[in-house]
This record gives sequence, C-alpha cells and structure tokens, in this order.
Amino acid sequence: MRQSDTREHLLTTGLRILHAGGFNGSGVQEIIEAAGVPKGSFYNHFDSKEQFGADVLGRYWEERASRAAALLSDESHSPLERLQAYFSAKRRTERTATFDRGCMIGNFSAELSGQSRLVRDRLAAVFAAWTCLLATCIQEAQRAGQVGADIDAETLAAFLIDAFEGAELRTRVDRDPTALMRFERIVFSKLLV
Amino acid sequence: MRQSDTREHLLTTGLRILHAGGFNGSGVQEIIEAAGVPKGSFYNHFDSKEQFGADVLGRYWEERASRAAALLSDESHSPLERLQAYFSAKRRTERTATFDRGCMIGNFSAELSGQSRLVRDRLAAVFAAWTCLLATCIQEAQRAGQVGADIDAETLAAFLIDAFEGAELRTRVDRDPTALMRFERIVFSKLLV
Repeated sequence: MRQSDTREHLLTTGLRILHAGGFNGSGVQEIIEAAGVPKGSFYNHFDSKEQFGADVLGRYWEERASRAAALLSDESHSPLERLQAYFSAKRRTERTATFDRGCMIGNFSAELSGQSRLVRDRLAAVFAAWTCLLATCIQEAQRAGQVGADIDAETLAAFLIDAFEGAELRTRVDRDPTALMRFERIVFSKLLV
Repeated sequence: MRQSDTREHLLTTGLRILHAGGFNGSGVQEIIEAAGVPKGSFYNHFDSKEQFGADVLGRYWEERASRAAALLSDESHSPLERLQAYFSAKRRTERTATFDRGCMIGNFSAELSGQSRLVRDRLAAVFAAWTCLLATCIQEAQRAGQVGADIDAETLAAFLIDAFEGAELRTRVDRDPTALMRFERIVFSKLLV
C-alpha cells in the first residue's frame, strides 16, 4: 500500500471505530488490527493517538461540510427551504448512525474537550466553520424577508448548532428520532420565522 | 466506616472522578484509591463499574433536582421569572465546573448510551423527570398568559433541555459562557414568549 493510501485507510478505519466506541473506549491496537497495518506504520503517519483523533474529526467534518455547502448554497431553492432541507437531510441520512453512535462532533466535545487541547482546538475550528455555513444562509433568508432580523444570523446559527447537537445526544438515549423532529418543529415555527 | 457511609463516600468520590475524567477515562482502581477503601468493599456495594456509573449519575441528578424543584416552584415569583432564575442560576453555579467538566447528564449520554443499557435507562429516567419539572412551570406560565400555548409545555421543556445540553457541550470547547448566555437570550426572546 502506498504511504498516502495507508494514511487514508487508517483515517477511514479509525473514523468508524472511534465513532462507534468513543476515543477512550478504543485503542490504537484495535485500529491497526482492523486496518491490517503494523503499529510502526500508524506512528509514521500520526504523532500520537491524540493527533489521530484530531485528524479523524477533521475527516468527519470535511465529509459533512461538503454536503452542507451543497445543500445550503443550492439557489434553485429559497434560503429558508435550503435550511429546512439541510436539517431534514441530516435527520434522515444520519438516522441509523445516530441511534447508536450520535454525532462525532458532540461526542468528542463531551469526551475530549477537557482532555486534549489539540482536539479542542480542532472542535473550535469545526464549530466556527459550521456556524459560518449556516449563518450565510440565514442571512440570505433575513435579506429575503423569510426570517426576522432581530437576532443576528451568526448568533442564530450558533444556537441552532448547539440545539441540534443536544438533540443528537438525546436521540442516543431515546433510540428514536423524536428529539430531531422536535428540533425541526420548534426551529421552523418559532426561531427561523 | 459504616457500610452506608462507605457507599456514600464511594458515590461522592466517584462523582468527582467520573465527572472530571469521564467513565471510560477513569478506573475503579483510581476511585478506590481516592476513596481509601479496598477493592472488595467497592464490589460489596456495587455489582459492577457500570452499576456504579448509573448510581453516580442518579446522585448527580438528585442534587440538581432538589435545587431545580425549589427554584421552579417558588411562588413568590411568576412562572416566567422562575424559569429565567433557573437557567441563570445554572449558568452561574455550574460556570466554573462547566468549562472543564460539562454536565454529567450530557457527557454520559455521549459516552455511554451505546455502551450501557443500564446507564441509558437511567439517563432516560433523568430526562423524563427533568422534562416534567420544567413542563410544570412552563404550563403555569402558559396559563398565566406569559408564554404562548401554541406548542405544548412538554415539547417546549424537552427542547429546552436538549438545547441547554448542547450549549453546555459548547462551553467546554469555547472555555467561556457565551453559549449559555446565547441560550438564555434566544429562549427568553423567541421561545418562551
């Protein structure tokens, strides 16, 4: 396997394992065995398990960011329709994963913020990028008169992300999508109006 | 130490350690050393680390439930004032703890929902009790005409809890109370009106 392929393979395998078992619940040994690469190879590509965790989180976000950008900038729909489509798509596509794994961004916030400065800084960058994507679309909706402008788009976007992450947490306990449906109902009847 | 005192002492010590280090990041050995009791004694009181985690969570909630009930049923203030006082008190009293430890209810939801049926069932009971406490006060505010009745009190209460837990998660990454202040600003200007 080429060097870049090995790195890629470790990130893909690690994403699956760290998402399912959590960071502290999964060992490097488990990851290299699942990926079928020697331990030395892991440490050729990543300085530490902590660095690996940060890079896996980066990969997780990249996948979601490109889907989010595509939906939120699709000008064949109004800004408000795009926001509705975005959260509805998140509920539907992440549905199966959510019930046993939740969102890795929220999971890592809970598990690693206090433990790893490296992961915490990566999480802050993810939240900033996510807020920016959503705020841009909310601002378009405000300019189009679809959403009130009494609260600035960035504050609304950050609140939506927090509330969404809280709803993702709850679906893990409930084992059903009630919390995500409640989120959409309240957001689109009380907040983005 | 009497049997009941040992159990109590283990729960208090365990709450501190599991809150700071997470469930998978803390070992039984660390807990019994910090509590100064032999390992056999731990297993006299708790069937397993998992059982211990569920009981520590129960203790964490009991402490918060009694404070919540006192604030939310204080009839010297209007229902809406009580709700404001409740979330403002949570922000102020949990502030220092929050930045490095977060809320144990959210942390355990993220870390253990997929791993432990026992803890998940306890989390579901905590969320149900918390929702009931908040919904009762919201319903009073609706009856008093302080909050619109277009969405039922129980749905609003559950949404507030999810959004609050998401904000708690975010404060851990931000290392400041911005997310909790944003939560209060939006809840009391857009939702509970």
